[in-house]
Amino acid sequence: MTYIETLGRNAKACKTELASASSAQKNDALMEIAHILRRCAPKIIEANELDIENGKRRNMSTSLLDRLRLDEKRIEGIAAACEKLTGLDDPVGEVIGGGTRPNGMRITKIRVPMGVVGMIYEARPNVTVDAAALCLKSGNCVILRGGKEAINSNKMLTALMRQAVKTAGFDPNIIQLVEDTDRAIAAEMMRADEYIDVLIPRGGAQLIKAVIQNSTIPIIETGTGNCHVYVDDSADVEMAVNIVDNGKTQRPSVCNAIETVLVHKDIADEFLPRMMQRLDEHNVELRGCDLTRMILGPQNVRPADEDDYATEFLDYILAVRVVDDFAQALEHIEKYSTGHSECIVTESFFAAEEFKKRVDAACVYVNCSTRFTDGEEFGLGAEIGISTQRLHARGPMGLRELTTMKYLIDGNGQIR
Amino acid sequence: MTYIETLGRNAKACKTELASASSAQKNDALMEIAHILRRCAPKIIEANELDIENGKRRNMSTSLLDRLRLDEKRIEGIAAACEKLTGLDDPVGEVIGGGTRPNGMRITKIRVPMGVVGMIYEARPNVTVDAAALCLKSGNCVILRGGKEAINSNKMLTALMRQAVKTAGFDPNIIQLVEDTDRAIAAEMMRADEYIDVLIPRGGAQLIKAVIQNSTIPIIETGTGNCHVYVDDSADVEMAVNIVDNGKTQRPSVCNAIETVLVHKDIADEFLPRMMQRLDEHNVELRGCDLTRMILGPQNVRPADEDDYATEFLDYILAVRVVDDFAQALEHIEKYSTGHSECIVTESFFAAEEFKKRVDAACVYVNCSTRFTDGEEFGLGAEIGISTQRLHARGPMGLRELTTMKYLIDGNGQIR
Repeated sequence: MTYIETLGRNAKACKTELASASSAQKNDALMEIAHILRRCAPKIIEANELDIENGKRRNMSTSLLDRLRLDEKRIEGIAAACEKLTGLDDPVGEVIGGGTRPNGMRITKIRVPMGVVGMIYEARPNVTVDAAALCLKSGNCVILRGGKEAINSNKMLTALMRQAVKTAGFDPNIIQLVEDTDRAIAAEMMRADEYIDVLIPRGGAQLIKAVIQNSTIPIIETGTGNCHVYVDDSADVEMAVNIVDNGKTQRPSVCNAIETVLVHKDIADEFLPRMMQRLDEHNVELRGCDLTRMILGPQNVRPADEDDYATEFLDYILAVRVVDDFAQALEHIEKYSTGHSECIVTESFFAAEEFKKRVDAACVYVNCSTRFTDGEEFGLGAEIGISTQRLHARGPMGLRELTTMKYLIDGNGQIR
Repeated sequence: MTYIETLGRNAKACKTELASASSAQKNDALMEIAHILRRCAPKIIEANELDIENGKRRNMSTSLLDRLRLDEKRIEGIAAACEKLTGLDDPVGEVIGGGTRPNGMRITKIRVPMGVVGMIYEARPNVTVDAAALCLKSGNCVILRGGKEAINSNKMLTALMRQAVKTAGFDPNIIQLVEDTDRAIAAEMMRADEYIDVLIPRGGAQLIKAVIQNSTIPIIETGTGNCHVYVDDSADVEMAVNIVDNGKTQRPSVCNAIETVLVHKDIADEFLPRMMQRLDEHNVELRGCDLTRMILGPQNVRPADEDDYATEFLDYILAVRVVDDFAQALEHIEKYSTGHSECIVTESFFAAEEFKKRVDAACVYVNCSTRFTDGEEFGLGAEIGISTQRLHARGPMGLRELTTMKYLIDGNGQIR
């Protein structure tokens, strides 16, 4: 039996039990996880330091090292998030449809867990706990495969979580880590459709692409966001500046940050200088079309090429293009959008309606920041990721998106 | 540009238009399709006869030839189904969630079309029109790839439908057929994730497996049904006989027909002979465990092996196994079920509840026939297939299952 088969069988053996566990028992387990993480924070930090040291030796960038790092405060945040999950509604068993058929059969459509969720992600050890906790609350077994750079942290976190769920009366195999970070094992995991019911990759565009190309398991694609703000000629300029500034500089490294601003030519002279002034406060690098460079001065704006429009910078860099009209803005968005979050700033009712109708994205904003594309901000209470695909879930995914459905049909002898 | 790229670009070029078309315009197009199919029935039959002749030359089985055949009556049925779709609610634009956030942003979650749907199916020309009509009603472009045995019928049907939708003011490329039935083209289609948003294979287990193995496009898996009836010791024997008979003999070739009966040992002596007597009316071949053979006489029951329990016979063949208890029945079902439709016949409340909780299938029946797993029977009005996967849809899929969702967020300057 291969390594993945072993994990798969382990999960399969306990998934029915977990799927029918009560919310109370699952909440107990989440509290146990929170307790053990707090109690063992020094052990976690010790394990994490190994990863940090290895990262430094491999010349990992400062921002990646920062993502990798766990300290007292971050561990407290992770533990608190587990506790918070106990307060959310359990999606399992929720009745989402049904009725009585003419022949008297009663149909009840309910939410049930997916079964076994596979998570493939990068060197962010917080995802290890986040994902496990969300899967637990939604009644799913989880098989975690994090980046090799975080392996020591992940091993420690998983060992502690397994101990915690055991204390709460569960089979520890409801949470499993792929400890062998060899790529061949990850590739095998992507084809383990016999054991894993859904695979959720979380990370950069390359990781997600690799999973799409190789997986035979149904996937929920997450995260890539090449997001735009279109400043319509009727826009409130002050509002547009605020929304662009917020979208670019409040947290540039995340998928709902904006990467390109499109400006209607009739408002470009007024808007662009004010935008540049504001973005200068964060030293944002601008890459613009010819008109943008003319308006703002070529010394202030690097020329933008096709690649710039197609890039998710995730940094203090913004592409800028002046468009002739609304139609050209839509065309640009259709060409470059990854279908994540798109925004129009406008005072025109018809432009707003048309934008919402025509733009094909998970979240379409009128006069507010794309930074709101987030499970917490949408009121889901928690988030497993942001789906940029169409199947199953689109946009921020909470606990409900970790469930599937089941039809229950009660009769008294009906036949066809 | 490859053949599939051409079709893909054609579809992409008209999908936004179709996605925002009114229900009235889409209904017009459906009526036009119904009219043209009726008017041109002789031409369709002529094209179909070419396929039938080719099939006969290739020694196609009688049942496959029957599936392939189109006559006046069948064409009328297909046309009537298109007309009927006009009476169903348009899922596009349906508001399925939302609310106002504390900061005043209004979130509206609506249904929108998938975009471009790919259908890969076998030699059933009726699917060509069914699928195209359902996609049209739900605002989706469709790329159809039917079995090569039906190519002449499919070409004619598609040409007529394209003419009809053009009459109704649509770009004919909203409906396209892969006319080159080379396998390499189908393989290319399965990897055209840049153009096709969801792929729905309809057909036998082999076809579906090939698509799962090779596709990079999100799939909705349909159809394979190894369905069971478990006759509990508390069952009403007459009801159990009716349900087994109906499940096996009313239409054995379909996915919701049953393949195995599990009988509690305490009721086997009473139930099995009455079941056999009834099934004899349809000459059903029985394949049973040792106990079944002992009870019914070994001359009446062939010995069943593992393969029999794992096989979707789709024929007048039934596997039978006497189980020691409820737990053994659940174990058997867990091992062999394809997660389609499972049934318990029982008078015990607790057995019914436990069965519904423990059995992991799209549709779990208590005291009624698995033959009801069907879009029409469930009140969906129409059916694109029966999903046996967990992602997106599970069980009978209607128009809603051909849509995805989109969040619209209206604000007045909110930033984070």
